[in-house]
Amino acid sequence: MNTKQTIAIIGATGNMGSALSTALAKGNNRLLLKATDKDKLNALVDAIRSTNPQADIEAAACPTDASWEADIIILAVPYAAEKDVAAQIREVANQKIVISIANPLNETYDGLVTEPGTSAAEELQKLLPHSRVVKAFNTTFAADFATPVIDGKQVDAFVAGDDAEAVATVSALVSTAGFRPIEAGKLSVSRTLEGMQLLLITLGIRNNYNWLAGWKILHQ
Amino acid sequence: MNTKQTIAIIGATGNMGSALSTALAKGNNRLLLKATDKDKLNALVDAIRSTNPQADIEAAACPTDASWEADIIILAVPYAAEKDVAAQIREVANQKIVISIANPLNETYDGLVTEPGTSAAEELQKLLPHSRVVKAFNTTFAADFATPVIDGKQVDAFVAGDDAEAVATVSALVSTAGFRPIEAGKLSVSRTLEGMQLLLITLGIRNNYNWLAGWKILHQ
Repeated sequence: MNTKQTIAIIGATGNMGSALSTALAKGNNRLLLKATDKDKLNALVDAIRSTNPQADIEAAACPTDASWEADIIILAVPYAAEKDVAAQIREVANQKIVISIANPLNETYDGLVTEPGTSAAEELQKLLPHSRVVKAFNTTFAADFATPVIDGKQVDAFVAGDDAEAVATVSALVSTAGFRPIEAGKLSVSRTLEGMQLLLITLGIRNNYNWLAGWKILHQ
Repeated sequence: MNTKQTIAIIGATGNMGSALSTALAKGNNRLLLKATDKDKLNALVDAIRSTNPQADIEAAACPTDASWEADIIILAVPYAAEKDVAAQIREVANQKIVISIANPLNETYDGLVTEPGTSAAEELQKLLPHSRVVKAFNTTFAADFATPVIDGKQVDAFVAGDDAEAVATVSALVSTAGFRPIEAGKLSVSRTLEGMQLLLITLGIRNNYNWLAGWKILHQ
């Protein structure tokens, strides 16, 4: 992508939202950040600018405003909040790429709240039928963005979606964030990707990965 | 495990069966190998003995015979054949560990024949209600057994099951085979593990991994 893209990040001050904002500000992107807590959002913008003075970032007043101007919309809100945000952006997200980063974990982090045979990404696609939903950044922990090389290897990050051009565009963002993009297939592959992250979270809690861990496909 | 275990491998001359037989003959195991083609089976036994003269291996006449004597039974047959084998060993596999290595791929290798909300391993558990079914060796390709270190890292191999003692026993076999065992949780995690291998197969076909690839969890 040589043309500057505008990316809306809804939920920018959360764990994942701030990691994504910091990482994607490094690329040729204009970022529109939306968060409920304005003071926290201003602090995030200041923090990004302090290490990256060229960053093209601004705070947006509401999800609709941010999405209206954006080429790509990232929902960095908890899964339970997606329905509400989707209702707000449904019209302005028409034909746009919407990135689903959510893992639909239950409250005890040992299962998914989605039914078998679907995924958070597919549910979001149902809520935004005229958008191009792409699954990405759900298998990377927030801390991985600062350390995308773990134990000597670049962490893989999986991208899945039904629109090939959208998948390619999001894969470029994954590269900007420092990960190796793996184009994993159709949006329904999100079922596996969300299951994988539930597994990684379970293993991380049990084995003390300290929320810094990632998947890697080894091949020659 | 210091005591010698007897392991039945049903379908020993297949791609995975012969890789498993060769690998597990290196441990403190007695192997009972069953295959339909007796000449091929004798050739496999000879091949294992030629590089591993101490190997304690013998051919078994039928799945029931092999399983009767075994502590652990590995079904290295295609998923479609498991129902038939399970019917034969149902009685003699009582209380024993039965390892499900199957990936229930469709004929075009781009989907699973199992319904959402279940897995090959869980279906096998239904067929063998009095056995302790453990999922293992489904995310490792046959060629990985000869090369369990790929691109400088030891390949991970996931073990899932509802019986903790059985999972620990199978994890030791995974180590014998040269992989890093990852205890992944309950048998239902097999849904994710089987989905992961469908994904790895899809990626391998598209990106020419040449059936030598594996999963790795990177952590510090």
